[in-house]
Amino acid sequence: MTQKTSRRTFLKKGLAAGAAATVASSARAATPDPLITEVQPWASGLGDGVDATPYGLPIEFEDDVIRRNVEWLTADTISSINFTPIHALDGTITPQGCAFERHHSGAIELSKQDYRLMINGLVDRPLVFSYADLERFPRENHVYFCECAANTGMEWAGAQLNGAQFTHGMIHNMEYTGVPLRTILAEAGLEAAGDLADKWVYVEGADASSNGRSIPMEKALDDVLVAFKANGEALRKEHGYPVRLVVPGWEGNMWVKWLRRVEVMDGPVESREETSKYTDTLEDGTSRKWTWAMDAKSVVTSPSPQAPITHGKGPLVITGLAWSGRGAITRVDVSKDGGKSWETARLAKPGEKMALTRFYLDIDWDGEEMFLQSRAIDETGYVQPTKAQLREVRGLNSIYHNNCIQTWWVRPNGEAENVEVS
Amino acid sequence: MTQKTSRRTFLKKGLAAGAAATVASSARAATPDPLITEVQPWASGLGDGVDATPYGLPIEFEDDVIRRNVEWLTADTISSINFTPIHALDGTITPQGCAFERHHSGAIELSKQDYRLMINGLVDRPLVFSYADLERFPRENHVYFCECAANTGMEWAGAQLNGAQFTHGMIHNMEYTGVPLRTILAEAGLEAAGDLADKWVYVEGADASSNGRSIPMEKALDDVLVAFKANGEALRKEHGYPVRLVVPGWEGNMWVKWLRRVEVMDGPVESREETSKYTDTLEDGTSRKWTWAMDAKSVVTSPSPQAPITHGKGPLVITGLAWSGRGAITRVDVSKDGGKSWETARLAKPGEKMALTRFYLDIDWDGEEMFLQSRAIDETGYVQPTKAQLREVRGLNSIYHNNCIQTWWVRPNGEAENVEVS
Repeated sequence: MTQKTSRRTFLKKGLAAGAAATVASSARAATPDPLITEVQPWASGLGDGVDATPYGLPIEFEDDVIRRNVEWLTADTISSINFTPIHALDGTITPQGCAFERHHSGAIELSKQDYRLMINGLVDRPLVFSYADLERFPRENHVYFCECAANTGMEWAGAQLNGAQFTHGMIHNMEYTGVPLRTILAEAGLEAAGDLADKWVYVEGADASSNGRSIPMEKALDDVLVAFKANGEALRKEHGYPVRLVVPGWEGNMWVKWLRRVEVMDGPVESREETSKYTDTLEDGTSRKWTWAMDAKSVVTSPSPQAPITHGKGPLVITGLAWSGRGAITRVDVSKDGGKSWETARLAKPGEKMALTRFYLDIDWDGEEMFLQSRAIDETGYVQPTKAQLREVRGLNSIYHNNCIQTWWVRPNGEAENVEVS
Repeated sequence: MTQKTSRRTFLKKGLAAGAAATVASSARAATPDPLITEVQPWASGLGDGVDATPYGLPIEFEDDVIRRNVEWLTADTISSINFTPIHALDGTITPQGCAFERHHSGAIELSKQDYRLMINGLVDRPLVFSYADLERFPRENHVYFCECAANTGMEWAGAQLNGAQFTHGMIHNMEYTGVPLRTILAEAGLEAAGDLADKWVYVEGADASSNGRSIPMEKALDDVLVAFKANGEALRKEHGYPVRLVVPGWEGNMWVKWLRRVEVMDGPVESREETSKYTDTLEDGTSRKWTWAMDAKSVVTSPSPQAPITHGKGPLVITGLAWSGRGAITRVDVSKDGGKSWETARLAKPGEKMALTRFYLDIDWDGEEMFLQSRAIDETGYVQPTKAQLREVRGLNSIYHNNCIQTWWVRPNGEAENVEVS
């Protein structure tokens, strides 16, 4: 047997030698704690039976860990967005129940019986599939992040929203199960399309907005999934039940929900969602289009404005998320002084392609203010830019694709605030 | 650009050449389908806004995908079990809301404020931690399965329960976030314990049953986690909120919920839960104890009694789950003829240690009856045994640790039944 306790010495000073280990437990030792010395009701009575919650929800104490929208951001809640409470989550999987939503004409209710998927255009055999048909194709499982192109978009104009949920919460990360789109296109046949190098697919949803997007054939035949499960179970209504498109690493708007049609075309449609929307207006007023991939990005989720430090100085876990639409995250650095100096964070697991990576930096906090930042590096060598670097290239007219380094000013009292550092 | 459509030829006969691809879509082509030809209400009206479900539940159409208990198995629902609907899930992650429960005195409600964890016994410094204290230690993230030792236990007496949910649903698989128990034990100090090779920890929960179990120190210092998140969010009430123990690969009863105390001892306690319960009574009436690791096991989840084939012959996805408490799954074989011949299934991803692995076998079903089986092989080389092999070694007096090969008799009409094959 190997003794492994020595492999990590966590506590650096004051805690390893004394009679109590942390400030908090030391304090409790001084006064008798009825939670320890007296039998509590939960230890002497019975709890709920197994028939209490056939499908369970979070315990009432966690009822602030929910999706939230920001009323002034959009004219109504039907064509709007809400945000994942990333400040309160850990690990990498996002439960469907608190994964952000973005709708263009609201979350529709569409049964499996009423579901149809049409494949048409430049195919050998136009086809219509039922949901049951889709279940007959070979499936794949992949964990991918889905990030709205507008995530962090308010930061173009400065530090406006106070909380990681609101600045970076248009993201979720789930294990998707589905059929590769290439399998379904092969079923319809692509001989009629001729040279595939200049072909596109146009994908649209069954909701009133239809949210149509053009995707180059190379991507369509690569890793795009026609997905019907997320985190093992059926997609939730608000995530596109019964079928949505999964377009790994690319902006969330292309992940068409309630997918109803895939048309093979000889060019892009230039739909509303890829011209007046989801393009990047530059300094000179011209707009860049086809900026599909979400560049490497990261954010410290705790401490953060909604997750202040409440325990004072001493051992502190700094944690956050990193991701890249161009591959795996290879390194995350954390700065406590607004980018002057950097420490390499610990990745909970080696980065996986187009999936969230959890990072940690375990420090002994001196109780002084910090300007906390994180910066992600992906397998292409790309380094997440500062806000100044991003503005230099892109100007201030953009809404989408803001992957700047985020700063939280943590004050000595542990509270944190969204700030800009020059 | 590389054309990738040719890399998999899915359809073997009759489907690749015709005007329609599957039986179902062919049938639809013959009669105009109003779901295609007419504008449907969900495509012309508005859906729900983003304020509709701050925390979402599954759509109403999925309300049969729930945990279920079997009334006659236990005297009451408080000290009972319910089962994960594995027949209806795909991928590997189990959402907390439908992950099986097992309680000995019911699911208790314990707030973070009221939570305390005591570390005592042969330690240098007995300690009491609050929930906030635990959050200050370095954390790890791991996906692990949790299987009740009694899972598949009814199969000792023959094919009794009709459905993968009931025969194999005492299992779930989640991404846990927590602090290694070794870190917390190091904080309390193990110098006083002397030679750790013969030491144990006794762990107990805050519920009335306390559900105390003894764990050898080697395991305690290896991979055991004091966990507070599952799939990113707080543990659900029924899974031990706010803190449970995670004992990778070992029987679920040791994964103590509402963890309140860890005592370092010079031997095992021989508590009720490790003597009269959770031991394996052999043919001669003696009982084997300390059978902690869950041996390699697998089950076909679809088709299965609760997930019959509804589409007739032709392309069929056979899928299921495999796992081992002794490491990673390296291979899964599937038999359609009750074990006479075997085909190697496709693993959705390379197996991970002590985590569920999803397997698929994509076949062209001839519409004839099948005796479907799966058998798992893990990294130790261990092969999942037949029911006969298991009975030969263990007799018929056991309740726990039944990892036999399961058989579903699939009839030509697509319905499936739990049967035994000799």
